Amino acid sequence: MASKTFYAVVAGVGAGTGRSVALRFAKAYPVALLARKPESYNDIVAEINKAGGQAVGVSADTSDEASVKAAFEAVGKEFSGKKLAAAVFNVGAGFAVKPFLELKPEELDVALAGNAKGLFNFAQQTLPQLLESVPDSPHPPTLIVTGATASVRGSARFATFAASKFAARAIAQSLSREFHPKGVHVAHTIIDGVIDIPRTKDWQVNEGKEGGKISPDSIAESYWYLHTQERSAFTQELDLRPYVEKF
Amino acid sequence: MASKTFYAVVAGVGAGTGRSVALRFAKAYPVALLARKPESYNDIVAEINKAGGQAVGVSADTSDEASVKAAFEAVGKEFSGKKLAAAVFNVGAGFAVKPFLELKPEELDVALAGNAKGLFNFAQQTLPQLLESVPDSPHPPTLIVTGATASVRGSARFATFAASKFAARAIAQSLSREFHPKGVHVAHTIIDGVIDIPRTKDWQVNEGKEGGKISPDSIAESYWYLHTQERSAFTQELDLRPYVEKF
Amino acid sequence: MASKTFYAVVAGVGAGTGRSVALRFAKAYPVALLARKPESYNDIVAEINKAGGQAVGVSADTSDEASVKAAFEAVGKEFSGKKLAAAVFNVGAGFAVKPFLELKPEELDVALAGNAKGLFNFAQQTLPQLLESVPDSPHPPTLIVTGATASVRGSARFATFAASKFAARAIAQSLSREFHPKGVHVAHTIIDGVIDIPRTKDWQVNEGKEGGKISPDSIAESYWYLHTQERSAFTQELDLRPYVEKF
Amino acid sequence: MASKTFYAVVAGVGAGTGRSVALRFAKAYPVALLARKPESYNDIVAEINKAGGQAVGVSADTSDEASVKAAFEAVGKEFSGKKLAAAVFNVGAGFAVKPFLELKPEELDVALAGNAKGLFNFAQQTLPQLLESVPDSPHPPTLIVTGATASVRGSARFATFAASKFAARAIAQSLSREFHPKGVHVAHTIIDGVIDIPRTKDWQVNEGKEGGKISPDSIAESYWYLHTQERSAFTQELDLRPYVEKF
Repeated sequence: MASKTFYAVVAGVGAGTGRSVALRFAKAYPVALLARKPESYNDIVAEINKAGGQAVGVSADTSDEASVKAAFEAVGKEFSGKKLAAAVFNVGAGFAVKPFLELKPEELDVALAGNAKGLFNFAQQTLPQLLESVPDSPHPPTLIVTGATASVRGSARFATFAASKFAARAIAQSLSREFHPKGVHVAHTIIDGVIDIPRTKDWQVNEGKEGGKISPDSIAESYWYLHTQERSAFTQELDLRPYVEKF
Repeated sequence: MASKTFYAVVAGVGAGTGRSVALRFAKAYPVALLARKPESYNDIVAEINKAGGQAVGVSADTSDEASVKAAFEAVGKEFSGKKLAAAVFNVGAGFAVKPFLELKPEELDVALAGNAKGLFNFAQQTLPQLLESVPDSPHPPTLIVTGATASVRGSARFATFAASKFAARAIAQSLSREFHPKGVHVAHTIIDGVIDIPRTKDWQVNEGKEGGKISPDSIAESYWYLHTQERSAFTQELDLRPYVEKF
Repeated sequence: MASKTFYAVVAGVGAGTGRSVALRFAKAYPVALLARKPESYNDIVAEINKAGGQAVGVSADTSDEASVKAAFEAVGKEFSGKKLAAAVFNVGAGFAVKPFLELKPEELDVALAGNAKGLFNFAQQTLPQLLESVPDSPHPPTLIVTGATASVRGSARFATFAASKFAARAIAQSLSREFHPKGVHVAHTIIDGVIDIPRTKDWQVNEGKEGGKISPDSIAESYWYLHTQERSAFTQELDLRPYVEKF
Repeated sequence: MASKTFYAVVAGVGAGTGRSVALRFAKAYPVALLARKPESYNDIVAEINKAGGQAVGVSADTSDEASVKAAFEAVGKEFSGKKLAAAVFNVGAGFAVKPFLELKPEELDVALAGNAKGLFNFAQQTLPQLLESVPDSPHPPTLIVTGATASVRGSARFATFAASKFAARAIAQSLSREFHPKGVHVAHTIIDGVIDIPRTKDWQVNEGKEGGKISPDSIAESYWYLHTQERSAFTQELDLRPYVEKF
């Protein structure tokens, strides 16, 4: 029963959270999936289309303004006449755990480009569209930003990654304060734990306990819930962590 | 399709949030409603039972250990054989906005008794029951605590109320850290705005804009969402505020 | 070269921080020392007076309004004609580390009485005096509240203590916002570590490293620094922790 | 009575905080002043040298790794044989207050380069020197980072500036956690108000009240106090605001 008039976009899809979010929002909307490389979205696009949903994938580097613009032009052609109901920024970049004096300035650049500039560019492309959807979107038009433990804590040896996630949180906060009164919901999430995805399959966390890694489908459910909040009760920030996680 | 084996309890019901939460959880569970006076729960109990749900009301002063114990004994008789799936502490007490030097020590006592001791007593009665439900509850057994702006901000002239809400937040945090690993979900919410209830009907907030007061039904939806989170992705704290609220 | 016109008061003196703060402020002001029992202040009073300073000790239970009032009447007689320049609330009460279900409501009462009601009563007695000193105090009249890790973190098994320290922090914040514009400086400190006092002599913390426990004299220096801040640059909250402390 | 063996460095000097900090630290140490243009430090260098202190100015763009390296080589020649006791990062860049959709990606670049990359580069040059001074520095070697309201709050229309100040705070936090145990003190300050400097002379803040803008000399005093903290009691974060400032 997907909406024919509205679509959703997810930037930063791959085998983990982005895929789950795409599948969840595809139950309600046609979805546009952005990733740097086709191999990151091809399978998800196929999976959604095969299941009767509607998905398109577009290659884009969100840290590059021109690339994001071009991607949304391509999306606009594919989804001609559709308006944007939800945008999810799920790009992760520049994760590094190193003694500070071993870090290179380029590592800070990469983290800031991916997490802060990427969000900036993505928000600049999506917010005008989300504003247009305020009058008739099925739920308040929503921009959701994926954060991490490092969004609120500068741990030892996380200087570059934390810098970029703090920066993204600042942008999300600022956008909430500016765009909530205009009717667009902007939410930031703090994913405080290891996500259970192929890449972390062999990571030993929380003593290997079942449920010790965060299910990406549960993250997707929380994003869907955030999107469905009506405007008298917007959540700006929500944390998610495994029941056995220390915090 | 309410559960026959599990029940929910809501402390602090009245015409506002408590009522909405009771109605929402009554869709899934028989509900026990606690309030100091029968007139606070009678109508809600009748409304739920009339609609085909199951509800009982019990008079209790949660700030008094013996009173809470007695209330749960009464609930135990009514709901014999049922296990507790969700407990909501929604008691509000001691709201006062006054110059500090005009406050009386008794006003601090009232606020602390209602918001901090009440939560303490309620948690001591419900957590053992929630722990017993871990193996087979439809969703992870959940304790939800209603907080406010004053839970995270000691504003001028809010000394007593903020003291008691900060204290309740501390208790909720501590319980999350102790009981999450045991499988019980403890969440704290920050209701950052005026709730749209009979008592606030004439309050002019956010320039009287539609949606400028928080819908208690939306709060209830967020509580239900929190309850349904599976254990790999528990939220500890969630804020809710109107789109036009300054923060 | 102690001030003859102004005095300072320290509530919660004993062998640790209170003593160091008393000695530090006694270099500049006559000091009144409050503690529940004379054995807590007798030696410090003697030490100060012997060193050429001026000190009086008064027995008081700050959690009891009448007791605090009586104490300040006694102080007023001893220090007749002197005005209050600085007040330090250093009372610690109700420290307990226990599984939540083993705690008794009385333990919450004791913690709230000591840390929250005590501060409330102390602030109600000292703020009117501090306000009177605004025009001519050598430094902006100051109220300093000693906090702890548990003032900002509800750790597992710290429910009662954290509740009371969160509450005190709320009061301090509220007082800052109300009294800063009137010229009285209210500051809250977060002592995030074990203090190096006789009672903790045998505690093994930070692997026994030198400097792994906080020097109470250093805490006292920070309080003195806070007191000397001029009013264009007030600090509301300051943390202190050993260099080897994890945080 | 300035130290002959140790020196201090201040990056980001001009007519305001940097100048006051330079003058304050020059009472104890020879000081190296970094700014992009000589006109920013020439007068201060002259003022310090004339008063009997020792100062050198070096042009540097802290956002450029090579430029910072070259600057410290120049400083090393001027202060040959001296070790670094204190480093202050006071660079401010990219302040902008604009509707988000009017911001250009370049404005984010400028803010991140100035506040985040600048701190990164400055810390990479100074931390190795500060580590060498641990054994014999008169006070624990110290790195102080100047923050702002926007370091902890993403206000509407502050997206780029807040992003960069959040990022700098993350770096400072991470460095505290990594370098405190090695004996180097890293502190972050939150200057929560308008500073009383030539540039803000005509700004109407806090209704023009005396003391309504922060004295840069008071900021400098707080930095000096932070530097003098002994290692059992390090402050990681300290806020400063005018007594009449809303917060």
